[in-house]
Amino acid sequence: MEQTDVANETEAEDALLEVLNSNNAVLHQYTKSNGHPRFVNVLAKLYSKLLNRDVNPQSEILSTLGASEALFCAITGLIDVGDEVIIIEPYFDVYVPLIKISGGTPRFIALKPKLNESELGSSADWVFDSKELEGLFTEKTRAIILNTPNNPLGKVFDLSELTLIANLCKKMECFLELEHFLASLPGMWERTVTIGSAGKTFCATGWKVGWVYGSAQLLRGLQIVHQYAVFTGSTPLEEAIAIVFEKELSRLGQDESYFVTLEKELKSKRDYIVKKLLEAHMKPTIPDGGFFYYLHSESDEYKDFQFTKWLTKNVGLQGVPPTVFYTDKNKQLFENYVRFCFIKKQETLEKAAQTLNKFNASHIEM
Amino acid sequence: MEQTDVANETEAEDALLEVLNSNNAVLHQYTKSNGHPRFVNVLAKLYSKLLNRDVNPQSEILSTLGASEALFCAITGLIDVGDEVIIIEPYFDVYVPLIKISGGTPRFIALKPKLNESELGSSADWVFDSKELEGLFTEKTRAIILNTPNNPLGKVFDLSELTLIANLCKKMECFLELEHFLASLPGMWERTVTIGSAGKTFCATGWKVGWVYGSAQLLRGLQIVHQYAVFTGSTPLEEAIAIVFEKELSRLGQDESYFVTLEKELKSKRDYIVKKLLEAHMKPTIPDGGFFYYLHSESDEYKDFQFTKWLTKNVGLQGVPPTVFYTDKNKQLFENYVRFCFIKKQETLEKAAQTLNKFNASHIEM
Ligand SMILES: Cc1ncc(COP(=O)(O)O)c(C=O)c1O
Ligand SMILES: Cc1ncc(COP(=O)(O)O)c(C=O)c1O
Repeated sequence: MEQTDVANETEAEDALLEVLNSNNAVLHQYTKSNGHPRFVNVLAKLYSKLLNRDVNPQSEILSTLGASEALFCAITGLIDVGDEVIIIEPYFDVYVPLIKISGGTPRFIALKPKLNESELGSSADWVFDSKELEGLFTEKTRAIILNTPNNPLGKVFDLSELTLIANLCKKMECFLELEHFLASLPGMWERTVTIGSAGKTFCATGWKVGWVYGSAQLLRGLQIVHQYAVFTGSTPLEEAIAIVFEKELSRLGQDESYFVTLEKELKSKRDYIVKKLLEAHMKPTIPDGGFFYYLHSESDEYKDFQFTKWLTKNVGLQGVPPTVFYTDKNKQLFENYVRFCFIKKQETLEKAAQTLNKFNASHIEM
Repeated sequence: MEQTDVANETEAEDALLEVLNSNNAVLHQYTKSNGHPRFVNVLAKLYSKLLNRDVNPQSEILSTLGASEALFCAITGLIDVGDEVIIIEPYFDVYVPLIKISGGTPRFIALKPKLNESELGSSADWVFDSKELEGLFTEKTRAIILNTPNNPLGKVFDLSELTLIANLCKKMECFLELEHFLASLPGMWERTVTIGSAGKTFCATGWKVGWVYGSAQLLRGLQIVHQYAVFTGSTPLEEAIAIVFEKELSRLGQDESYFVTLEKELKSKRDYIVKKLLEAHMKPTIPDGGFFYYLHSESDEYKDFQFTKWLTKNVGLQGVPPTVFYTDKNKQLFENYVRFCFIKKQETLEKAAQTLNKFNASHIEM
């Protein structure tokens, strides 16, 4: 997993300092199993606003030890022996073992680039074939997992893609599991479990504070797993994230909103690094969301793992070979790429740019 | 679960403040799945000393989200379909569902008081029948779970009891799961998984920082479950607990040792509340370890739940009815008791004493 890094990264730390300085001993003792009250209350208020419905803090929200534990509770709590779960490649590696230990079977469909590999594209150019997806839905399908913005690609599924998926879910009586910060689909509340993570949102991946929202009926399965797996989350960390969310709630939609500034900051970081990559004659896939970009390898010599190792050693850039996000069948389609993370301090990005410059110079001289 | 409360409760909070004030961004990002290096390193040093063997910080220690997650990883990671697990009553409620979801079968044996109920005894007077225990071990027995000091009784299993259990484990090729702060048994390293919790040790139950130690072979099963269930623990909280343990390591065995002062403090709290209970003509079972005591109800009218409710309402003391710690078969043996927690600030204990005094006065006047 990735380290993250942005300018207002201390928002969460400042809140934790506030918790410690309050000298309130209760904030270091057990909290409720479904979540620290202040935390689930502000999440309920936030999502009630964003989804324009009354979200119940007790029955429709569950706080978890990061998105990881949320995924664990959702998959092991809702998938039974014989169920099929659809996964869109590239995908986050834990889905498959979690489905398998629940007795389910994963079914895969890959996003593929519309464009010729040598053209420069954005992550929106990576699409699934809708007929292929429809063919994957059977009466055994219990869920489809949708990670948007997709890690590692940065693809944000658009409304027409989401509507197509929603209609298939409704037809097949299965549910949708979203790893997405702030969204749900009209008419899909009863069948959608949405997972969030403070790690990603507030640049505190090491805090392991996450949450889930969805209908009370779906969440019941998750709450039971959560109770037996960990019992409760961390009181002081949930209190601190609650403080940050309360601030955010009061400035929602305004220019000072953290979500607004984060988006701006990510966009400027993305544009900066894309520009530097182009100057170094490299071919990034421009991400529409998330903190990662795909880099295309021109050479036949350096595929995927080799390319990643070569870049680390010769260019000084640390990436992740994306074939780890694909099944064996589809690995060969993506071995010409490598994933990089750009949610880094400006100094770090500048260092990367210098590295690219040097590489570019030596490359041209060669 | 219980809230805890002692004089040096801020030890952990002070360490967390130190972490925050260090302004080290890395301490808010992901740490290793098997545990934050500083944390597992100090635990390995501590246990190497206490157990007089070289404990490997990577392969023989796993940090967990509290003892709860440690229990979850240990039971689901090591118990298979058809396995039997021996549980000593009174027991912590999660053992049974965890064994059942792993496909195992719990087998019970109850601790029973040696003395007549009307005599005043200590938790050491609560014993298991060694023939009965031997009879429970079969070729299907995979583990025995030993919680010492036992919650809720406060019983500390003595060397002869531990040796008897160890010999049965060795004979039957099964393992022992200890919920115990600082102990293991000679020759039992290969078959013992020991669970600890910072919540209980440092009066920060809400932090959910725990750990497990044992042989690399046994721990492998737990590490896999941990990786898929939560991936990692909280970096800043593990760093803070590491700082506290480092201090403890440097003063181990000395008078300033937290473990020494905690033990003294618990003993003085225990003796204070026992004295007050006796003055109020109540009959506590004096605990040899832990933070709980059993109170015996003289009256036939107020059994267990009723007695607990009656005490809350009429005496102003908040207890837990102990039959929740027993199987149906044995519940009726223990419905004349109630469990109280004495790891409270002196003021709180004094308030309880005043309440008892008032109760005593009104009782005598009646
Ligand atoms: C798609 C996806 N899901 C889940 C996680 C785990 O999140 P957390 O750190 O909140 O457990 C990650 C982290 O990289 C991720 O990319
Ligand atoms: C015997 C026993 N095991 C496990 C736990 C859970 O500990 P933690 O809060 O560290 O998850 C408790 C808490 O009361 C307990 O008494």
